[in-house]
Amino acid sequence: MTLTPPASCAASTTSHDGIRAIEWAGDHLRLLDQRALPQRELWLEYRQAHDVAAAISALIVRGAPAIGVAGAYAVVLAAQALLRAGQAVSLANLAPDLERLREARPTAVNLAAAVERMRGCLERAGALTDDAARVAALESEARALQSEDLAANRRMGALGAQRIRHGSSVLTVCNTGSLATAGYGTALGVIRAGYESGAISDVYACETRPWLQGARLTMWELNRDRIPAQLIADAAGAHLLSTGRVQWLIAGADRICANGDTANKIGTCQLAIAARYYGVKVMIVASSTTIDLATASGAGIPIELRDPRELTELAGQPTAAPGSRAFNPVFDVTPAALIDLIVTERGVIEAPFEPGLRGLFASA
Amino acid sequence: MTLTPPASCAASTTSHDGIRAIEWAGDHLRLLDQRALPQRELWLEYRQAHDVAAAISALIVRGAPAIGVAGAYAVVLAAQALLRAGQAVSLANLAPDLERLREARPTAVNLAAAVERMRGCLERAGALTDDAARVAALESEARALQSEDLAANRRMGALGAQRIRHGSSVLTVCNTGSLATAGYGTALGVIRAGYESGAISDVYACETRPWLQGARLTMWELNRDRIPAQLIADAAGAHLLSTGRVQWLIAGADRICANGDTANKIGTCQLAIAARYYGVKVMIVASSTTIDLATASGAGIPIELRDPRELTELAGQPTAAPGSRAFNPVFDVTPAALIDLIVTERGVIEAPFEPGLRGLFASA
Repeated sequence: MTLTPPASCAASTTSHDGIRAIEWAGDHLRLLDQRALPQRELWLEYRQAHDVAAAISALIVRGAPAIGVAGAYAVVLAAQALLRAGQAVSLANLAPDLERLREARPTAVNLAAAVERMRGCLERAGALTDDAARVAALESEARALQSEDLAANRRMGALGAQRIRHGSSVLTVCNTGSLATAGYGTALGVIRAGYESGAISDVYACETRPWLQGARLTMWELNRDRIPAQLIADAAGAHLLSTGRVQWLIAGADRICANGDTANKIGTCQLAIAARYYGVKVMIVASSTTIDLATASGAGIPIELRDPRELTELAGQPTAAPGSRAFNPVFDVTPAALIDLIVTERGVIEAPFEPGLRGLFASA
Repeated sequence: MTLTPPASCAASTTSHDGIRAIEWAGDHLRLLDQRALPQRELWLEYRQAHDVAAAISALIVRGAPAIGVAGAYAVVLAAQALLRAGQAVSLANLAPDLERLREARPTAVNLAAAVERMRGCLERAGALTDDAARVAALESEARALQSEDLAANRRMGALGAQRIRHGSSVLTVCNTGSLATAGYGTALGVIRAGYESGAISDVYACETRPWLQGARLTMWELNRDRIPAQLIADAAGAHLLSTGRVQWLIAGADRICANGDTANKIGTCQLAIAARYYGVKVMIVASSTTIDLATASGAGIPIELRDPRELTELAGQPTAAPGSRAFNPVFDVTPAALIDLIVTERGVIEAPFEPGLRGLFASA
């Protein structure tokens, strides 16, 4: 497991896991600018916590697990700055940076949780009289958070890949890979593990309008890791599934309700309906932190509507008729009845999902 | 019915039918450049048949019925040129232009059929000794072809709209409107007629990657005609259908098999599956020339695969990771079992479709 990836983006622990978007370099943080991908692989260096907060706001790093990791290292940068300035590495002195980081993406639960975890670490380290020792404790905590996310992804990858018959082709949507996490990915982690084991022979990726995360980011990851992949239009999913070329639809999740209804990137539900129609299986891959037992079903999930300009413009250029209105929901809810497997780092769950999902936490 | 639309694009016979892409001006043909839409409304003038052939090849005019109309007027231009040059308006002298036109889009059956119809007209006009009278006969035939297509579209519009309950919202895909036909449109003709009658209150249009005909052309037509419309991502269809906001999916067709299986723009099948899942009805609108009784079912329809660059580039700019491969089918087949109504100018057919489709021709 790579805790501090080497300076090259080609960091690799297996032959098909060559991408990290977040590198901790001991005294600074390096982020792969996801706005510039895939045209440019631009690495940016950060030595100040508030600059990392700005980078999170600007989507230079994206993906809920990934911004949690970046936020944790930003707290380390803030503590190092206090140490260099001869100031106490204390909660009081760190408070402004913690607040700023927490607010960089207010809706992303992983970022707030990571900052809270770092705050708890500093509280425990308060007993240490040596400021340098406190900084070391924080750095250790951030490394642990990063390595735990990576380990969860690798575990999900192994568990999911075991369920796929040798030589299968799979379809995926959006980006759920190394760029969206500490590394390896959720749905894309299963694809990496499956390609490694021979379970998966090749991948189809939906381009995922309006942001094109599939075309820009997932294809970039798969091309880098030399996993055979083809891009399809979002509209081409049903035709592909009708041909019998694909055995699994594999997707991530933004929220999994108690009954198994799953919110994910817009388009997932449409693909899952078509998959059921043509007899193709559906696998959802997400860490246990994505499970929301307090929400009974998908009816309780608010669907975020975003700016119509995401549909009427691309890179600042108009793509639609002038004056066009647009309806731009960015998530949909796949009914549990259309899902065959939910894969988490704590285990794989089959329908009926509710007992299995609750059981994950009862046994934890 | 407008046989020679006025010079302005705002030609209108009803308040919601304000667009013509092909204008015959007596001695020249004007085409609205569909490559430039929606950013620019650029009208190009043609006085030579071979220039019209080049315009058809270059997709300045697109849509099978529309290129048939343009091809017919191009034959008139060729005949007028012979007359001006003092040459005989004969089959022999027109043959090179007829051949060139026929080959401008070799796969479009309407273009070849239109050229053949004009050739037949000239044969019948051969008895006339006056070259000017022959040119007049050809011009009359081209006008008839244009007006017949428009009349078929209006008839389909009326028949389809009658089946829609007052105040419904509908979802459509690709461009099936005035730009794709002599005017009014097929699926979009039903939408125009339905909006006029109050059956349809508003429209959702899929952007229709990779060419964005929905975003660029359908939204342009609906905005021009002041029909309330919103653009959606192709991936957002199922979510929209799940909300209960939409009562009908209305689509065109490229080929309708004897059993009712229908080939249409990629994405139609995916929407039809989701429509059935959420209890939304599906209407296919196409002229009787689209019905192919010789093909028993969708299994007999070849699906055209096009250049991957249509998915990896947009307006010359890369949209996908470098080196990405793509699978780019541009049509899919909607199983007849998912279709509620097939609307043609000869009547409306319900399942089981085969007797009804055969009956259309038996009674003709």
